[in-house]
Amino acid sequence: MQDIEVKTEHRVTKIDPKEKKIQVDNLSKSETQWFPYDQLVIATGARSRRLNIPGNDSKNIFTLKDLQDGIHIKNYIDEKRPNQVAVLGGGFIGLEMCEAFRLRNMETFLFCRRDLPAGNLEREISEKILNELQENGVHFLDHQEPVAFRLNSNGEITSIETSKDQFPADMVLMAVGVIPNVEIARKAGVELGKTGAIRTDTAQKTNLVDIYTAGDCCEAFNLVSQDWVHTPLGDIANKQGRVAGENAAGGRATFLGVVGSAAFKVFELEVAFTGLGTQAAQRYGFEVGSQVIEAESKVGYMPGAKRIVVKLIFDRKNGRVLGAQMVGKEGVARRINTLAVALHQKMTIDEIARLDFAYAPPFSAPMDPILIAAEQAAKKIVK
Amino acid sequence: MQDIEVKTEHRVTKIDPKEKKIQVDNLSKSETQWFPYDQLVIATGARSRRLNIPGNDSKNIFTLKDLQDGIHIKNYIDEKRPNQVAVLGGGFIGLEMCEAFRLRNMETFLFCRRDLPAGNLEREISEKILNELQENGVHFLDHQEPVAFRLNSNGEITSIETSKDQFPADMVLMAVGVIPNVEIARKAGVELGKTGAIRTDTAQKTNLVDIYTAGDCCEAFNLVSQDWVHTPLGDIANKQGRVAGENAAGGRATFLGVVGSAAFKVFELEVAFTGLGTQAAQRYGFEVGSQVIEAESKVGYMPGAKRIVVKLIFDRKNGRVLGAQMVGKEGVARRINTLAVALHQKMTIDEIARLDFAYAPPFSAPMDPILIAAEQAAKKIVK
Repeated sequence: MQDIEVKTEHRVTKIDPKEKKIQVDNLSKSETQWFPYDQLVIATGARSRRLNIPGNDSKNIFTLKDLQDGIHIKNYIDEKRPNQVAVLGGGFIGLEMCEAFRLRNMETFLFCRRDLPAGNLEREISEKILNELQENGVHFLDHQEPVAFRLNSNGEITSIETSKDQFPADMVLMAVGVIPNVEIARKAGVELGKTGAIRTDTAQKTNLVDIYTAGDCCEAFNLVSQDWVHTPLGDIANKQGRVAGENAAGGRATFLGVVGSAAFKVFELEVAFTGLGTQAAQRYGFEVGSQVIEAESKVGYMPGAKRIVVKLIFDRKNGRVLGAQMVGKEGVARRINTLAVALHQKMTIDEIARLDFAYAPPFSAPMDPILIAAEQAAKKIVK
Repeated sequence: MQDIEVKTEHRVTKIDPKEKKIQVDNLSKSETQWFPYDQLVIATGARSRRLNIPGNDSKNIFTLKDLQDGIHIKNYIDEKRPNQVAVLGGGFIGLEMCEAFRLRNMETFLFCRRDLPAGNLEREISEKILNELQENGVHFLDHQEPVAFRLNSNGEITSIETSKDQFPADMVLMAVGVIPNVEIARKAGVELGKTGAIRTDTAQKTNLVDIYTAGDCCEAFNLVSQDWVHTPLGDIANKQGRVAGENAAGGRATFLGVVGSAAFKVFELEVAFTGLGTQAAQRYGFEVGSQVIEAESKVGYMPGAKRIVVKLIFDRKNGRVLGAQMVGKEGVARRINTLAVALHQKMTIDEIARLDFAYAPPFSAPMDPILIAAEQAAKKIVK
């Protein structure tokens, strides 16, 4: 095995797949060089999306994608002590940052295009998130589409203009999603999927010979919808990277796909989901049924027991589970994974209702919330 | 639907399956009566086992099976303020009670026949439990087989004699397992299984017409070993009871079986397991492989992250998972259930290593401990 040589401060600017070489800017020396390759792995990641509206390059507008972004935000707060922060976007970066800003005692405004935060989730889940935000002093502004930023003479934002109104702000966090870094790959002839990310297969190959891809720059196969998706998450990138690396080194590894599992924390609330939501499942042509229940996270007499909401989404024709979402202050994030396994295995609601889970009062009730939800859901399946 | 009539203070003493009636002692009136039945459900539970050695009926020897037992123990401690308590048996009742006694500041001695507590679990798990007991001041006495109790003139225990030595004790908790209450059923001709509990099927029927059974008095089918077992646990009883009740009322429900999932807490330690241990799997003829790993319960920089131990047990010939055991101070009990689903679905180690779990730093690492264990285990499978 050959040694690994790490080249920091080198930026790849071009790929020549015919000659099998890459053009690289040596940033420290301001030189450009060509390096030959036998196998190439494109793992260029993604970058934060920015709203394309006037004033969007102001120096007190921030995005958050990597550690350096976090350091910039922290330094700005420490130096300038902004009072009013506007968070644009109700996805989980925006929500997590609402918590962080409130912990710094900043007045926090969350601007959303939809009527609820985490608008991709089911309403029953998003409503609990809204409640948690408001209980923690976040001002939630629904149906707000920013149209311009107003700047002072220093080029700093002083207010945000939306389709509805104008709001003062000392600082803005733009958390409106990410864009895969595919420009260099595309110019070299690497094919993109319909999501705009690099198209790949279960071996993490691209359409070009000896070029692999992994991580936030490429797509992943969703095993529930049987469709290629762009789901830029750390654990998926990690798994794809192992497969791309192994195969580039002559192995025969496969990454079969994802089911769409994720979790986040917002203040005291745990939110977790896996598989498809109702609308996505309908778009894919499933005859969708759903069941929402509320139950104790563990036996009610145990300290710390909390009510949690479980929503199951299933195919009414055959009872197959299509997705699950949960929210609550305890025992949510790690509970969802049983349903992730069920999705991988294409299990039915009936099969889920019969699962033998570990029961002990400090951790669960004799009938786990998932089993209660499945038992209720089973009554809705067309037999 | 007819009303339900609840008869408290009535003890069933005989079943006449030919005449379809039961003999009942009315305890409040000291009367015996016969009641006819159309369908009968035998749910007589289990009782604590007692060691059959001299002095075992002393008034300061306790067992713990139901709420009344707990009240007796609590009252005795409040009244007599015993200093030294001997716990006989290292199963999870014994372990949980060690914690309870230490919380009352009692000097606690745990007597075990084997070299480690929770001797049915894997050594890697039991060693962590022993360590936790000792860190919390429990005196662990290994390889101790009690042979007699020494009593004072009031009929109270003063010491325990074992095969090795003699130990003072003001109070004894006997936690050496349970015996199914099958005497009345057996006399009526209800067939017992090889475990000594009532034999049943997936409809919770007994061998006798119109007689069903559920709970700690009967067996359950283990889907991993494909063998009937006696696993007296509350969640299994709950599920069996629903099926027996539905079928006695004319339904067609089934309880397909268990995989052997359970969890308990001992001081700060969470312990959870599912499926077969190494020795049990070998007894059932599997070519057993295993993998132990230690990993963080969540991303290491998050507050509260703890090291947890995961052991996977699998069939080396085909990679099928046979069991899993975990121990640690955080994130154990609710993690085991993903592997319970894997056992229900007869998944392989390879399939487990590819699962898409929800990842977020407050709850897990990008590579969940289960995925790390499965990836390591996969290297040991004969291909």
